[in-house]
Amino acid sequence: MKKTKLEPDTLLYPMPAVLVGAMVEGKSNVMTAAWCGITASKPPALTVGLRRERQTFKGIETHKVFSINVPSTDLVEKVDYCGIYSGRKRDKSDLFKVFYGALEQAPLLEECPVNLACRVIQTVDVGSHILVVGEIVETHVSEDCLSEGKPDPVKIDPLIYTTVSQEYRRLGGVVAKAFNVGKTLKA
Amino acid sequence: MKKTKLEPDTLLYPMPAVLVGAMVEGKSNVMTAAWCGITASKPPALTVGLRRERQTFKGIETHKVFSINVPSTDLVEKVDYCGIYSGRKRDKSDLFKVFYGALEQAPLLEECPVNLACRVIQTVDVGSHILVVGEIVETHVSEDCLSEGKPDPVKIDPLIYTTVSQEYRRLGGVVAKAFNVGKTLKA
Repeated sequence: MKKTKLEPDTLLYPMPAVLVGAMVEGKSNVMTAAWCGITASKPPALTVGLRRERQTFKGIETHKVFSINVPSTDLVEKVDYCGIYSGRKRDKSDLFKVFYGALEQAPLLEECPVNLACRVIQTVDVGSHILVVGEIVETHVSEDCLSEGKPDPVKIDPLIYTTVSQEYRRLGGVVAKAFNVGKTLKA
Repeated sequence: MKKTKLEPDTLLYPMPAVLVGAMVEGKSNVMTAAWCGITASKPPALTVGLRRERQTFKGIETHKVFSINVPSTDLVEKVDYCGIYSGRKRDKSDLFKVFYGALEQAPLLEECPVNLACRVIQTVDVGSHILVVGEIVETHVSEDCLSEGKPDPVKIDPLIYTTVSQEYRRLGGVVAKAFNVGKTLKA
């Protein structure tokens, strides 16, 4: 298979399109992020990469808490809106219904089927972005996105961001069961 | 929308299913990871969360370099195999054709359409896992996965891991163009 060497680039596929919630100057603010990933299971933890000049980062720096919210495809316009417009120029506090769990300064977005309330464990300066490592201290899921009490990815219907082509896509069909299909491989 | 509070959990949707390459005791080793995300653009950087007892982590600790490889759906059996079986018990050095770029100890997997060669910038202890932050120093893409010289997500055909339901899924259809559909929102 012939390869082309491109400039070093952030070509991870797929990326999520999530909404980061934070409290900025007494109001909830929401920004869109694709640069988010899980890190650990004990404690459950995730990372998000944020530019330090972002309003959201200011809120996180102040309160040391934030939320990651997984939106469904029907929220695509609002998701994109929150990626285009800064909280400095547009008040995004009324865009979603906000609720709060144990972390009083971490706004959770009711319309998003999955809400992860996070407490900052550590921040790492990575040049253009600050890597925020957060412990997931609370997990809320919309009841209509559960099947037999468990989160159902098809009902959650998450947005997938594809870098370079800059599209939001939906989840496609099942390729195989994990921790299963590899057992039959003759290697 | 009624919410259910679950135990704190790593419910990010979607997650990638990537292959982490590292050199362990003179041989290339490959493990599957879903806990991977982009962090920064300058330098281009990513994170991956690894248990410290993993062979792959040992290789990364020794050589301070590794690779992230994005597999296509047709590699699902090998991807799952590399998630199930440790390099301690199975020699995975012959599972893929390996090539090397500037980072001599970062094995790149030829069959995977996207290969990111990374140098460790920092590691962070996050309890069960070590968060490895890597600068992406080289990016290779299979020529047949480019459209007009740019990586094409449909041709790359990446695997998507869905947590809890433990499935590999494919990329679905386009919902909307990013940095575009949100402009028309009346908010």
